[in-house]
Amino acid sequence: MAKKRYQIIAEELLLQIEQGRWHAGQKLPSLRSLADQKQVSISTVQQAYWLMERRGWVEAKNKSGFYVSSDAVLETQLPRKPGCKIIPCGLSQWRISLNSTNHDPDEIPHLFGRATPDLTLSSLNPLKKSLSRLARSANPISLGYGALQGVDSLRQQIARRMIDGGCKVLPQELIITSGCQEAICCALQAVTQPGDIVAFDSPTYYAIIQMIEAMGLQALEIPADPTTGISIGALQLAMEKWPIKVCVLTPNFGNPLGYLMPDEDKKKIIDLLNLHDVPLIEDDIYSDLDFRPGRPKAIKAFDTEDRVILCSSFSKSVVPGVRVGWVIPGRYFEQVEQQKYIVSLNSATLPQLAMAEFLEGGHYDRHIRRVKQLYAHRRDLVKDLIRKYFPKGTRISCPKGGLMLWVELPQSIDALKLSTAALKQGISIAPGPMFSVSDKYSHYFRFCYGSFDEIKDIAAVEKLGELAYGLSKL
Amino acid sequence: MAKKRYQIIAEELLLQIEQGRWHAGQKLPSLRSLADQKQVSISTVQQAYWLMERRGWVEAKNKSGFYVSSDAVLETQLPRKPGCKIIPCGLSQWRISLNSTNHDPDEIPHLFGRATPDLTLSSLNPLKKSLSRLARSANPISLGYGALQGVDSLRQQIARRMIDGGCKVLPQELIITSGCQEAICCALQAVTQPGDIVAFDSPTYYAIIQMIEAMGLQALEIPADPTTGISIGALQLAMEKWPIKVCVLTPNFGNPLGYLMPDEDKKKIIDLLNLHDVPLIEDDIYSDLDFRPGRPKAIKAFDTEDRVILCSSFSKSVVPGVRVGWVIPGRYFEQVEQQKYIVSLNSATLPQLAMAEFLEGGHYDRHIRRVKQLYAHRRDLVKDLIRKYFPKGTRISCPKGGLMLWVELPQSIDALKLSTAALKQGISIAPGPMFSVSDKYSHYFRFCYGSFDEIKDIAAVEKLGELAYGLSKL
Ligand SMILES: Cc1ncc(COP(=O)(O)O)c(C=O)c1O
Ligand SMILES: Cc1ncc(COP(=O)(O)O)c(C=O)c1O
Repeated sequence: MAKKRYQIIAEELLLQIEQGRWHAGQKLPSLRSLADQKQVSISTVQQAYWLMERRGWVEAKNKSGFYVSSDAVLETQLPRKPGCKIIPCGLSQWRISLNSTNHDPDEIPHLFGRATPDLTLSSLNPLKKSLSRLARSANPISLGYGALQGVDSLRQQIARRMIDGGCKVLPQELIITSGCQEAICCALQAVTQPGDIVAFDSPTYYAIIQMIEAMGLQALEIPADPTTGISIGALQLAMEKWPIKVCVLTPNFGNPLGYLMPDEDKKKIIDLLNLHDVPLIEDDIYSDLDFRPGRPKAIKAFDTEDRVILCSSFSKSVVPGVRVGWVIPGRYFEQVEQQKYIVSLNSATLPQLAMAEFLEGGHYDRHIRRVKQLYAHRRDLVKDLIRKYFPKGTRISCPKGGLMLWVELPQSIDALKLSTAALKQGISIAPGPMFSVSDKYSHYFRFCYGSFDEIKDIAAVEKLGELAYGLSKL
Repeated sequence: MAKKRYQIIAEELLLQIEQGRWHAGQKLPSLRSLADQKQVSISTVQQAYWLMERRGWVEAKNKSGFYVSSDAVLETQLPRKPGCKIIPCGLSQWRISLNSTNHDPDEIPHLFGRATPDLTLSSLNPLKKSLSRLARSANPISLGYGALQGVDSLRQQIARRMIDGGCKVLPQELIITSGCQEAICCALQAVTQPGDIVAFDSPTYYAIIQMIEAMGLQALEIPADPTTGISIGALQLAMEKWPIKVCVLTPNFGNPLGYLMPDEDKKKIIDLLNLHDVPLIEDDIYSDLDFRPGRPKAIKAFDTEDRVILCSSFSKSVVPGVRVGWVIPGRYFEQVEQQKYIVSLNSATLPQLAMAEFLEGGHYDRHIRRVKQLYAHRRDLVKDLIRKYFPKGTRISCPKGGLMLWVELPQSIDALKLSTAALKQGISIAPGPMFSVSDKYSHYFRFCYGSFDEIKDIAAVEKLGELAYGLSKL
C-alpha cells in the first residue's frame, strides 16, 4: 500500500525533529504556511499533524497551533517496513534480567532496574493494618488450604472494578493467583504445546520471553510503536503468514514501552483474533496507573468470543510482596484452573482477605489517586534529569501511565556495559537486550521511576549520565 | 530369581490371613510347630516371620511368639510379579481430586479428604503473632519484590534443620517456593522435556499425576509395599527396560500409603540413580511428622552425586495457608531457579520472615512435639473406628508418621460412589482412582486424620461405614 501524502509529510517532519531542526516545545509551521511550502491542501497538512499528535510527537495547543511534544520523540520501533522473525530465545537473557532486577534496596540503593511501586506511602497503612489484624485472629479457614479459585470477597471486588476497564465479569469467572506472573504462566501453559508460535510486541516484558523459552515455544516479535503499541498491520501480516498459537500483549502502559493502545486498535486486534481463531493473553497489570482520571479499556472489553485471557495483579498498583494476582480465562477457564492447581494449588488466603478489605474500604481508590499524581510527577522529573545529564541524542519515551521510561542512548553506547558499570555504583537499570530475542535494543535501557526518591536519587541519575558519557567516548 | 522357601511360607501365611483364617491380634503357630508342619528348619520359619514383621503383617511379642499385626494387613501393592505399564494419564482425575479435596470446612464439615494438619492448636499462636507484628511494621523490603531465592534467615533455619534428615546443605543451595507443589512443579519442568518418562510409586500423590499429564510426560507406575515403599526390584527392572528421565518419590510417610522406606532401600535407590544417570525428585514434606522422636533420613542424605532435588514445605508440619516451601535442587540449581522465576517470580516475603521467627524461637520444635503425639493418637482412634464401623474385609494401612490412612474396602464397594454419597452427607474422602493412572484402586480410599475432631467427627465415620455397608449390598 503506497503511502499517503500526509503520511509522507508527517515522516519528513519527524525526521527534522530527530535531526534537531525542531526542538521540544517549539512551535511548528502553521497549517497555511506548511501547505504553501509543500504545495498541498490545508486539510492534508492537518491530517499530517493529527497523525503526529496521535503518535505523541506533537501537541495541539488551544488554537495557537502545533508544538513539538515536550516529550522527546521515540520512534525507532515504528515499523517502516513491517516484518517479523521467529527466533529461538537465549538463556543468557535470564542471567541479565536477574542481575538487573533481583536486588534488595539494602544491597543496591538506587533500584531503577525493577518495576516496583512506591512502598513508603501512608495510604498503604490500612492494608498493613488489615494484614496484621487478620493474621492475629487467623482461624483454620484462613490458615488452611483455601478454595482453589481464591477468596470470594476478593473476587467480588475485582469483578466490580473490571467494569471500569469495560469488562463485565462475574466473580466465579475469575481465579486468584500468586501474582500476575503466575497468571500469565498458567495461561500460556494452558493454550500451548511445545513448538507453538507465540506472537508479542517488541520490546516486551522479559519474563514473557523466558516463559516462551522454558516451555519450548517459539517467539515471534512484532514491532510496536512507542505511543500506540503493536503495529496492527504487522500483526495482521504475521497472522496470515504464520500459524500463531497465541498473542501476548499489554495494551495499557506496558513494559517497557509504556504505550497506550487506542481503542480502535483494540477492536482491530479482536477482529484479527476472531478471524484466525487465536486466543490473546492480555496483561492488564498497569491499567489502573493511568495519569488521567479513570483507566483505559482492556482489549477484553471488546472481546466478542470470550477468547481473551486477562491477567493482572496488585503488584504495581499496591504492593508486589503480597503476591496477589488474578486471571480471567474466558473460554479457557477449565484449562487455566487446572494449570493453577498444578503449579501451586491455591494461593495464600490471608493476603487475599486483606486485599479484599483494602478494596471494600475505599482505601484502594484513595491510594490510586495518590500514586497517579506522584508517578506523573516522577516521570517528568526523571525525564528532565535524563535530558540534563545524558549525552546529546538520548531519547526518552513519554508514557501516559505506568512506572517506567524507555530510554534510547546514542547508538555507540552499550547499555549492558552501562548497566554493569552502574551496578558497581549501587545503581540498577534494565538494559535493552533483556526485552527482545533480537539484538535491536543494545543501546536502550528501561528506567523505573516508581520508587524514585527526590532527595537521594537525583545524584544517581547524574552519575548514570556520567557513566554514559564515559562509554560514548570509548 | 526363584523364590526362597521362607518367602513362600510368608506368602502362604499372608494368604491365610487375607482369607480370614488368622485374625488381627491372634497368635500364629510357634516356630517349632510350623517348622514341623512345613518340614523346614526352624530358622527358615524364623526368616519367614521376620519378613512378615518387616512388612508390618505380624508383630513379635516379648518371647511369646508372633501375632497377626493389630493393623489390618494391606498387601495388594506387593509386587508378586514386578511389572509396570506406561499409561497416559486421564483428565478425569483432576475433576475427581478437586471434588474430593477442594472444600472449606464451612461447606463440608467433615473434611477427611484433604491432607490438612490441625490448625486449631495454641502452639501456632507464636506464628500468628509474628505474622501480625511483621505485617503492622511492614517496610519497603518486606512489601517489595524480595530476592528470588527467598529470605536469608529462613533459608538458614531450614538448612540447619535438614541436618536432622542427614543432609548437609548451605542456605545458598536452597530456594524458597510457594509451597511444596510449586517446588515439585519447578523441579519436574526443569529436568524433563515433553514425551519423557517419569517413574513414581503407585499409588501416589495425585498432583504428581496431573503435572505429568499437563507437561506432556509419560507416567510409569512402580508398585510399592505399604510399609517399606517402592519395590526396588521393580524399579531396577523398569530402569533397565525404559529410558526413565526422572523418578518422583516420597520415602517418608508419603501420600497416600504412608510407608517408611528403610535406609538400605534409600541407598539402593541412589545406586540405581547413579547407574542410570537419572535425577530424583524427593518429596520430604511429611518427614517431620514421624511418630517416634526425631525424623527419618532423606534419600538425599545418601546422595553421592548431587542428583536428588529435595522438595518440601511447612504445609503439613505447620500450616498450608502461608504457602511457604523450599527446594534444594543440587546439580540442577540453575534450571530450577529459572523455573521458579518463570512460574511466579519470588514468593511472598512476610510469611517467610514469620516462619523464620517461628523456627528461630524454638516454637517449631515445640509444635512438632505436640502434633506428633496428637496425630499418633488420631491414627489409632480412626483405625479403631473404621474397624468398628466398616464392613468385614476392610483393611487399613498403619503409617508410622504423617497425616493419612489408606483404606481398602471389600472389592465390591466402589470408592467413587462412596465418596459421592459421603459428600452429600457433608463428609469428604479421597477415592482411590485419584492416586493412579491405572484402575487398581477403585475400592480404596484415603482418610486424612490430621484435623480429626474427637467430638464432632466420630459420628461421621460411623455414617461413612453405613454408606459403605449400603454400597456393599448393591
Ligand atoms: C508487564 C508485567 N507483567 C507482569 C509482571 C509480574 O507481575 P507480578 O509481580 O504480579 O507477578 C510484571 C512485573 O514486572 C510486568 O511488568
Ligand atoms: C506428598 C505431597 N506433596 C506435596 C503436597 C503439596 O504441598 P504444598 O501445600 O506445600 O504445596 C502435598 C499436599 O497434599 C502432598 O501430600
